[in-house]
Amino acid sequence: MKLSLLDKIRQNNPVVLTVANTVTIAEVANAVNAIGASPIMSQAKEEAEELVGIAGAVTLNMGTWTAAQVEQMLVVGQFANQQQRPVIVDPVAVGLPTRHQQFERLIGAVHPTVIRANAGEMAALSGDLSNSKGIDATGTIKNAAAIAKDVAQHFHCIAVMTGETDFVSDGQRVVSVHVGTPLFATHVGSGDMLSSVLGAFMAVETDTFEAAITATATFGAIGAWVVEREQLSLKQPGTFGVALMDGLSQATVAQLAPYLKNKVVEES
Amino acid sequence: MKLSLLDKIRQNNPVVLTVANTVTIAEVANAVNAIGASPIMSQAKEEAEELVGIAGAVTLNMGTWTAAQVEQMLVVGQFANQQQRPVIVDPVAVGLPTRHQQFERLIGAVHPTVIRANAGEMAALSGDLSNSKGIDATGTIKNAAAIAKDVAQHFHCIAVMTGETDFVSDGQRVVSVHVGTPLFATHVGSGDMLSSVLGAFMAVETDTFEAAITATATFGAIGAWVVEREQLSLKQPGTFGVALMDGLSQATVAQLAPYLKNKVVEES
Amino acid sequence: MKLSLLDKIRQNNPVVLTVANTVTIAEVANAVNAIGASPIMSQAKEEAEELVGIAGAVTLNMGTWTAAQVEQMLVVGQFANQQQRPVIVDPVAVGLPTRHQQFERLIGAVHPTVIRANAGEMAALSGDLSNSKGIDATGTIKNAAAIAKDVAQHFHCIAVMTGETDFVSDGQRVVSVHVGTPLFATHVGSGDMLSSVLGAFMAVETDTFEAAITATATFGAIGAWVVEREQLSLKQPGTFGVALMDGLSQATVAQLAPYLKNKVVEES
Repeated sequence: MKLSLLDKIRQNNPVVLTVANTVTIAEVANAVNAIGASPIMSQAKEEAEELVGIAGAVTLNMGTWTAAQVEQMLVVGQFANQQQRPVIVDPVAVGLPTRHQQFERLIGAVHPTVIRANAGEMAALSGDLSNSKGIDATGTIKNAAAIAKDVAQHFHCIAVMTGETDFVSDGQRVVSVHVGTPLFATHVGSGDMLSSVLGAFMAVETDTFEAAITATATFGAIGAWVVEREQLSLKQPGTFGVALMDGLSQATVAQLAPYLKNKVVEES
Repeated sequence: MKLSLLDKIRQNNPVVLTVANTVTIAEVANAVNAIGASPIMSQAKEEAEELVGIAGAVTLNMGTWTAAQVEQMLVVGQFANQQQRPVIVDPVAVGLPTRHQQFERLIGAVHPTVIRANAGEMAALSGDLSNSKGIDATGTIKNAAAIAKDVAQHFHCIAVMTGETDFVSDGQRVVSVHVGTPLFATHVGSGDMLSSVLGAFMAVETDTFEAAITATATFGAIGAWVVEREQLSLKQPGTFGVALMDGLSQATVAQLAPYLKNKVVEES
Repeated sequence: MKLSLLDKIRQNNPVVLTVANTVTIAEVANAVNAIGASPIMSQAKEEAEELVGIAGAVTLNMGTWTAAQVEQMLVVGQFANQQQRPVIVDPVAVGLPTRHQQFERLIGAVHPTVIRANAGEMAALSGDLSNSKGIDATGTIKNAAAIAKDVAQHFHCIAVMTGETDFVSDGQRVVSVHVGTPLFATHVGSGDMLSSVLGAFMAVETDTFEAAITATATFGAIGAWVVEREQLSLKQPGTFGVALMDGLSQATVAQLAPYLKNKVVEES
């Protein structure tokens, strides 16, 4: 983990291009802006090449996919691969058959640097569909670390699996991140924010595994920090949304470090 | 009215599928999540059958319709009818001729369980266009109860007509709901939230009239409760939006019951 | 400047039609509603003529353009020109070549009453691309007043150039507006809000230059007022978004006047 990347984002102000989920497009743009990067959202494949050209990283979120949007993602993702920009894919609800097909279509043409998904979605990707309702992960996923590793190996990428504990794997190593807040699950868009915030970290660090671990840990710590500071209960999704946005803007390395002590652990 | 449905939503966590208004898609997803159900939003007709399959109810919101979206609504709505899922239609601004045509197109192929609209929209549906500006209802609608009943009879559905007083009719009975807050009108998306929250209630109760009355009364009471608790003025639309989201998550049957005493009345 | 226009908006409640940026569509609708006008957002060119018919002004925001949306803007804009409704164009990130092409396509068929853009975008429009990163304006733009005037002259419209100081020009005169808050830049959608709030002012005042100056000054003063009242720091983008919405609803001419004293100045 390399917490100083947070400062580097604020110094370099990298552009993060997101092909977004319509549900969360505003939250994601604000989150990227708040943490210190520069968001651009696009719906037109005609501008893919030039936007990838100015972007430090690209996030493709399948949450409200259409056939036309997957076409756009193919174009954006291929330019990103060519121009060696990190590509984060967020395969929302990929446990559903049609969404899985679209994911396969995307992944057949675009190499992802990171796949960011919740436990149910990761289980679906790993072929272990038994744990997935298709939408979200409820209950416990057994062998979460193994599932993350499987996905990373299979897709030759980094897997970021979020949940009560997050797991980040490059296919060989698995790092667990034990920081966050259950309020993330109460606020629609938390996961999508992380998928684009990952782009901000990947844009300022060439060690992609380090960047993914740091992004995941930083985002989780900011959530934990604002909940503690504002003394939020689990039933304040509206207030949490506002506080999280402020926190993304305010958090410093010094404030977050105590939340991360012994919380980011390489699994044996 | 059956206030215990609120607890049932939180126990059963039903999936509510919304074909959404782009303006309010985030608010609606968060509202469905906050009250204890599980939102899914979709823009692709290719996944209609499988999403309807996992959904307890379906809401079709015409607020930012396009020809392609109406196509999607036709497919989603027909699968919902076949699979006996409740269908809530929100005919935003249906007083406008082109929107009325699109509504007719939808309603020609899909049977609605509920039509949720404001007074101006209901008046337009009932053929009494004189009271409708097409966008919102200003001024007083005479014979509001009669208009709601007319719409319910004509479309063989439940009509939920929202305003200072709400009217819910199944074509024979009319129940008035005298609870809410004028702040609903200051916050874009309040009506759209109710249209999808109705889905959460319909998903856990087979008596559709009871479910519609309870959803309307519960949503209104939550609005009244948060305004009183936070002592909000009429000129705090931003703060109200945040407080409403918290309130949807927090409100219990015990807290809401006092707000509903003698407020839900069967019209003679 | 004619601050009384704020009262006129609240009395007349004009309809402002926005063809919106998907990122900011909810914020913009809420802002138009909060200031006292009536928002309608549309994605269907089929309803363009009737929506323009009931609108007092039309805003076209290119932030998440697609080929289909530009088609819709052409239809909406041409009806607005025919029906003599003010047209505000917001050419988001027009420094990017493909976006510039789309802007040219729009402007070739639709006469804008106002172009609202930040300094980098205005510089791109004026042909001085050296100052533009394409997305936002960082650093200082030299000769800002001259650039605004250039754009106004070239496109035969009013140019509203926003930044630390705003400049409003009709091609002959240039008025500078020295009020606002750096928090606008921290909250995605502030500029888009102004582009549609401009519509509310244009809808109630035939002197378009006066209306544009007043809208720009009023919006800036509301930002400054809420930041002072709530004692907000620069790192509270979430809280600012909520406070700004409340402020748009609450602000009165009497409250704003002190913020504008000697702040709206005709440049020599």
